[in-house]
Amino acid sequence: MSSTYGTLFKISTFGESHGSAIGVVIDGCPAGLAFDTDFIQHELDRRKPGQSRITTQRREADEFDVLSGVFEGHTQGTPIALIIRNTDQRSKDYGHISEQFRPSHADYTYQTKYGSRDYRGGGRSSARETAARVAAGAVAKLLLAQAGVQITAYVSQVGKLKLEKAYPELNLALAEENAVRCPDPETAEQMFQYIDGIRKQGDSIGGIVDCVVTGLPAGLGEPVFDKLHAELGKAMLSINAVKGFEYGSGFAGVEQLGSEHNDEFYTDESGRVRTKTNKSGGIQGGISNGEDIYFRTAFKPVATIMQDQDSVDVHGQPVTVSGKGRHDPCVVPRAVPIVEAMAALVLVDMYLRNKAAKV
Amino acid sequence: MSSTYGTLFKISTFGESHGSAIGVVIDGCPAGLAFDTDFIQHELDRRKPGQSRITTQRREADEFDVLSGVFEGHTQGTPIALIIRNTDQRSKDYGHISEQFRPSHADYTYQTKYGSRDYRGGGRSSARETAARVAAGAVAKLLLAQAGVQITAYVSQVGKLKLEKAYPELNLALAEENAVRCPDPETAEQMFQYIDGIRKQGDSIGGIVDCVVTGLPAGLGEPVFDKLHAELGKAMLSINAVKGFEYGSGFAGVEQLGSEHNDEFYTDESGRVRTKTNKSGGIQGGISNGEDIYFRTAFKPVATIMQDQDSVDVHGQPVTVSGKGRHDPCVVPRAVPIVEAMAALVLVDMYLRNKAAKV
Amino acid sequence: MSSTYGTLFKISTFGESHGSAIGVVIDGCPAGLAFDTDFIQHELDRRKPGQSRITTQRREADEFDVLSGVFEGHTQGTPIALIIRNTDQRSKDYGHISEQFRPSHADYTYQTKYGSRDYRGGGRSSARETAARVAAGAVAKLLLAQAGVQITAYVSQVGKLKLEKAYPELNLALAEENAVRCPDPETAEQMFQYIDGIRKQGDSIGGIVDCVVTGLPAGLGEPVFDKLHAELGKAMLSINAVKGFEYGSGFAGVEQLGSEHNDEFYTDESGRVRTKTNKSGGIQGGISNGEDIYFRTAFKPVATIMQDQDSVDVHGQPVTVSGKGRHDPCVVPRAVPIVEAMAALVLVDMYLRNKAAKV
Amino acid sequence: MSSTYGTLFKISTFGESHGSAIGVVIDGCPAGLAFDTDFIQHELDRRKPGQSRITTQRREADEFDVLSGVFEGHTQGTPIALIIRNTDQRSKDYGHISEQFRPSHADYTYQTKYGSRDYRGGGRSSARETAARVAAGAVAKLLLAQAGVQITAYVSQVGKLKLEKAYPELNLALAEENAVRCPDPETAEQMFQYIDGIRKQGDSIGGIVDCVVTGLPAGLGEPVFDKLHAELGKAMLSINAVKGFEYGSGFAGVEQLGSEHNDEFYTDESGRVRTKTNKSGGIQGGISNGEDIYFRTAFKPVATIMQDQDSVDVHGQPVTVSGKGRHDPCVVPRAVPIVEAMAALVLVDMYLRNKAAKV
Repeated sequence: MSSTYGTLFKISTFGESHGSAIGVVIDGCPAGLAFDTDFIQHELDRRKPGQSRITTQRREADEFDVLSGVFEGHTQGTPIALIIRNTDQRSKDYGHISEQFRPSHADYTYQTKYGSRDYRGGGRSSARETAARVAAGAVAKLLLAQAGVQITAYVSQVGKLKLEKAYPELNLALAEENAVRCPDPETAEQMFQYIDGIRKQGDSIGGIVDCVVTGLPAGLGEPVFDKLHAELGKAMLSINAVKGFEYGSGFAGVEQLGSEHNDEFYTDESGRVRTKTNKSGGIQGGISNGEDIYFRTAFKPVATIMQDQDSVDVHGQPVTVSGKGRHDPCVVPRAVPIVEAMAALVLVDMYLRNKAAKV
Repeated sequence: MSSTYGTLFKISTFGESHGSAIGVVIDGCPAGLAFDTDFIQHELDRRKPGQSRITTQRREADEFDVLSGVFEGHTQGTPIALIIRNTDQRSKDYGHISEQFRPSHADYTYQTKYGSRDYRGGGRSSARETAARVAAGAVAKLLLAQAGVQITAYVSQVGKLKLEKAYPELNLALAEENAVRCPDPETAEQMFQYIDGIRKQGDSIGGIVDCVVTGLPAGLGEPVFDKLHAELGKAMLSINAVKGFEYGSGFAGVEQLGSEHNDEFYTDESGRVRTKTNKSGGIQGGISNGEDIYFRTAFKPVATIMQDQDSVDVHGQPVTVSGKGRHDPCVVPRAVPIVEAMAALVLVDMYLRNKAAKV
Repeated sequence: MSSTYGTLFKISTFGESHGSAIGVVIDGCPAGLAFDTDFIQHELDRRKPGQSRITTQRREADEFDVLSGVFEGHTQGTPIALIIRNTDQRSKDYGHISEQFRPSHADYTYQTKYGSRDYRGGGRSSARETAARVAAGAVAKLLLAQAGVQITAYVSQVGKLKLEKAYPELNLALAEENAVRCPDPETAEQMFQYIDGIRKQGDSIGGIVDCVVTGLPAGLGEPVFDKLHAELGKAMLSINAVKGFEYGSGFAGVEQLGSEHNDEFYTDESGRVRTKTNKSGGIQGGISNGEDIYFRTAFKPVATIMQDQDSVDVHGQPVTVSGKGRHDPCVVPRAVPIVEAMAALVLVDMYLRNKAAKV
Repeated sequence: MSSTYGTLFKISTFGESHGSAIGVVIDGCPAGLAFDTDFIQHELDRRKPGQSRITTQRREADEFDVLSGVFEGHTQGTPIALIIRNTDQRSKDYGHISEQFRPSHADYTYQTKYGSRDYRGGGRSSARETAARVAAGAVAKLLLAQAGVQITAYVSQVGKLKLEKAYPELNLALAEENAVRCPDPETAEQMFQYIDGIRKQGDSIGGIVDCVVTGLPAGLGEPVFDKLHAELGKAMLSINAVKGFEYGSGFAGVEQLGSEHNDEFYTDESGRVRTKTNKSGGIQGGISNGEDIYFRTAFKPVATIMQDQDSVDVHGQPVTVSGKGRHDPCVVPRAVPIVEAMAALVLVDMYLRNKAAKV
């Protein structure tokens, strides 16, 4: 198990879906940051369940406590511990799933690796763990905001419904105004109805979250292994249900010629070196070049569905896993703040590491 | 700069394209492994330049020396240092590029981050560094082979030319029999001609490398941050020119319903728990489930082209970057052993880490 | 700030002396360990304040909650979060010390490094943080006990009062039977009276804690940098007030000839390779050799004294720091379980790392 | 095996005593440092064998090659690889020791941990490895010198011969003027004669190296685990033959009262906060306070002696280990540059990490 991420801004998350609490310790946050609890709560609220009828109806207030690291409203350079109590721990009988391996869940692999598992609501493998990431990511965002860096994610695809416009043509601020978090209101409405239909079928569907980073200075990223996009990719792929990551021209870029794909440099009016195009996605050789960073993260359909499925139990015997309870028919609306949080955690770590680049 | 990768099987690579040598130190290789130098050389030969007319004509023998860590033919548990002398260091005048920023290369970002750069052949940002990875990866492969694990990569796309069959329908052994490393001879030939045409135009083209891992036991991977696919993704994205990574159903999976996408479990004749389908790509919850792992890595067209391009110099003044010298018109044939090497490095580290999972 | 320790059994502590809670996240504890909460509480009780009149009269129950990582009485391989609420947070006026630098405390260095500090009871620099280490160390001890490893520390010196016998001549079980934790009852009584006299003077005194590890197999330790004694030394030196560490023959060993100091090998009746003497302290070349490990840790007199002292304030102006409140006149009796805990954390990490030593 | 040290300025050493080469990769050295090869060679020369008749007569030029990371005389932010060829690899018969466990060497523990060992001259456990540390430490010293930091070590004790004066009373520059590296010429001469006598007996003797760091700014060190003195302690204890470490008042400090031991603060004429005394050894709460840092490191007598000793072989059978060949009768004169090098490596890493302490 490795629930620790980061070199200088290091986070360690903990907690199971139906344990008493989840949380995170941030070890290495610089001192002197104004600790905006309202902002952190706002970020948690963006991720929490029950926001609309197309997200799970689990009831969690997701309010957090600060146990350490903040004094007189500011960070102290000491570890910041944040915890979120689990309030919706239904005292129900888990007997029916305690011995079953749900298809495409982590039940079988956890059981095999660790010899046992907390089967209540997925235990540690539940996406509930990402609330802790969002809390830590909010702190990272506060630091980045001081440096003028903004991170904005949004839903660009649900099933086969695709947002056809690229981010420069969109007003990203609109994404937060609908339940799907798609910045094109019309597409958002189509996606909403589509997801709601999936929900009524007791099924689930995948989607894609796009993310844009603006205001990032050139120089962030630590080649050769900790290239900026490699760390972003790892961070995104560590989120539950993610199956793919691409940045800049991504998979589509493989079909281009070098002469089409290369981003020529020029000097803008302010004397700053810029690129005419941005196929590079703001990263060259693993280091930010000062242009916008953009990347896409693919989420599979949620494994929990309200349908019967064949499976086996811990003894290898055939069983029918029956769908009941609450589920997210599509994870991407709630994944938007998670993607932003993980991006913030990567960027703030790189920001701090970059201070040691030159004599 | 972070040229170190791994938690227990830790590698540290070094060297610039036109310095005296490149190499790698492997810190944490278990003792007692038969050190097969022929196999390591064979892997390096698969990556080396000049293998056919569609790869760069740079002349490098890429022969390696073992400086430490091996005694009487076996690893000792001590650091293994491998170096490869750079033999093709043409004593030419680099004046024309020493002050220019080549489009979509790392010249500008290295200069900005570090305040200077070794401009000879791209210095540290050159893909020449990956020879050191291939050498270390070969050692990792030797360890994995003892545990019955096989890693096989191949070219599945060049530009718009796609291999339409999935890996179970292919004879992957055929990939090594042609210069493109595509296991379908007919498609391989088309790709070869296509790349050769690109080469004659002085241009470059992207492509995709697929990779399949067989024989891996269930239980490898360290959630929540070091999920097996997250580390594989980071490793692939750390390779020069990579723009995207997906595993299992990948980006296409987002269009599926949960009821289509879920992999139902069954028990096979030998009593082993298996999945009927493998959309999960052999990984569930970040941990291997014993099925084949497969993933895809997208490479952009190489930035070096034999054409004039607009750019700026280190003073911000406009310049024309003229293409000359030697280049790879398409990187994917030589990327195949690099993808395998990075996969091996991830898997062997996870293999060793997994030993501490249970009491 | 780095509050994270360990490579595989990784702990991250948090909390300030007068914040709402302190605690620890253990990331990497193997699954399947019976989680003995009584034992953990017992260890915390050994460290807690108010055990006798020669320790601080601060009132802390030091009861802990398990937030995660334990299910049905066993560890799950997932992060174990333990918190201890701070109950004795007197709502007093800290005005008198909020701007003063107490001599030989960390007030000045924290203020300089971080630009501010939590001045309440020393904040993060308070030894209260070590309760979290003791809780984590108790978990480590549970793991080691399964492998037959026992760790026993005791007080061997207070001021100039020295226990003249070495550990093989002592009944270490007696250490827990007196308030000083010295295994020789007569010396213990002398030490108690001496410390009590110091306490009445409002002064403090240093001391030495010895520690013995028995039952450890040969092979633990990771040279060349993570030698077993180097990690033990770092761990001990990371405890508040520690000024020195030695193992085996230690500082006294420098006066011996090699012919006196060398530990000759022999084979015992059971066929096990042993050493006739143990100047090496159970460690050779940084790796355990199967003999007892023993080491000594020196603690300075506690900086808090009930006397007036000259100092300066945050503005550099002269002030008189007046002693009031509660203090430990001698830290070593309560340091005994902390030394054991840190030793356990080092040993369990090495135990897990050693699993990857050989093919 | 862990031959990697450091968080940001990370070194990875490699090489066996009688392999083809030893060396080090420095990953994370900031760009822009003037790379003074003469200085690095000078430091290596201070450590090399054969400097006088009281050191081993092994013949090694210890000249180094720079394989990477330096361009046009400056570091590039890329990994710096330095290698030193082993020139004195006598093609002798090692048969007599290949199966014997030399007393108080690492033969038995390496054999047990790794299942085999390079028995030629101690293989990886040989102090020859420290040449790589000295080379890396010299680079660290170059960086620290730019910040005004000086590190000076010297011999303060050999056997029972002690230098009675503390460092402020000594002219440390004199240490390099004699073969013992003791700054008091008279004591140095006594030590020299004493060691020479030991040598003639074929025996060995221990000693102590003191080290003083001046010019270090306040603020370095990363509590709670990576306290400055904890990292210094680990670094010293990782050097071959070290048995103990103390800083500031050290072990002697335990006998003092708090009222004697506390360092009162005052503001000096320049407005800088200082301490009247320095029992703290320049470190409070694990962070440098701007005063001189001083610490002491104890070295046991070298295990290699020119006398017969009882032991066992790899089969557990009794053998007589006979002393022959070349040895250091006392290791401390050559340990002086090693102590300095390790201190430099710790300090430069802390210097870089401290850049991220505040917003």
